[in-house]
Amino acid sequence: MYGKTIDQLIEALRILPGVGVKSAQRMALQLLEKDRDAARKLASAIDEAANKVGRCAQCRTLTEHDLCDICSNPNRSESQLCVVESPADLYAIEQAGGYRGKYFVLLGHLSPIDGIGPEQLGIDKLIERLQSNSVDELILATNLTVEGEATAHFIADKAKALGVQVSRIAYGVPMGGELEYVDGGTLNMALQSRKTV
Amino acid sequence: MYGKTIDQLIEALRILPGVGVKSAQRMALQLLEKDRDAARKLASAIDEAANKVGRCAQCRTLTEHDLCDICSNPNRSESQLCVVESPADLYAIEQAGGYRGKYFVLLGHLSPIDGIGPEQLGIDKLIERLQSNSVDELILATNLTVEGEATAHFIADKAKALGVQVSRIAYGVPMGGELEYVDGGTLNMALQSRKTV
Repeated sequence: MYGKTIDQLIEALRILPGVGVKSAQRMALQLLEKDRDAARKLASAIDEAANKVGRCAQCRTLTEHDLCDICSNPNRSESQLCVVESPADLYAIEQAGGYRGKYFVLLGHLSPIDGIGPEQLGIDKLIERLQSNSVDELILATNLTVEGEATAHFIADKAKALGVQVSRIAYGVPMGGELEYVDGGTLNMALQSRKTV
Repeated sequence: MYGKTIDQLIEALRILPGVGVKSAQRMALQLLEKDRDAARKLASAIDEAANKVGRCAQCRTLTEHDLCDICSNPNRSESQLCVVESPADLYAIEQAGGYRGKYFVLLGHLSPIDGIGPEQLGIDKLIERLQSNSVDELILATNLTVEGEATAHFIADKAKALGVQVSRIAYGVPMGGELEYVDGGTLNMALQSRKTV
């Protein structure tokens, strides 16, 4: 309806997360109505990132270098290794600012139905790293979903067999959370995991 | 924090409407994590549209040809001309499907404070078209905002001086609208513009 080129642009914009037909139409029209230079800049930024950004050779997160900034930072402790599902999770922990160790990014979770097994998650690489004896504690920070839990269990078993101390991030009521609005599963977990004060 | 290339991509994505820092981060990571080919396709779709899509020589809407599909369609009536602020408004009316005349797109509204006067809105071109005597009725479908109203008034004065019949789209309660939830301004307008049945 908008003509071939604009229709193609609308279709292409829909690969962005959270963008449906209506938002894609709005984005396409605004890109073309407002600032063509900004549109061209966006095109080249996407293209450049798609071509330049690769995986960190050590932790598998997104980086444009061989090693990411965290893996190549000598001030980050080698003795703690935090396992996350995605680069976005890694950045969330970094933004929280309370962790000074290193990371390992699975880029997914175990999901046999989608053909994602230990191999796709780089578990062999993780085990190699644990065998190098530089890691004292493996912190499992996969999502608190069924798949994330299963993945954490699987990795915990492997790591314990190598004699590495394994921990899992805590379940519980979020900071500032009002009990009234917290879901039942979380509340039960928070009760079960209660600590003596 | 994500490295130069990814930071640039995040910054560039923020020109999209409704995309803040958090969404831009999510979009950038997902583009790079999931499907690089789709990302490259998006880049080339934006680039192609930015370079190919221009303005219709007659109605000023976005098109990749000299004349847009509506202006070049002989089945659309020349006698009705509908004035809208943006291509998005034009498409909204087209999707509603009840109008068979032609359009004129202002690409904005009068806004002296932003340096947008009659010249920037192509009013001289609109007047030329009215002078050609092919238009029997000018329908003002600018937004029902202060600026849209001011623009409609300005154009109405010019058109009336040329002896063209001018109308304005109706104010009122939206279809399916429950009075309880309609704002006071709309309700007052709906009462004032009441029709005998």
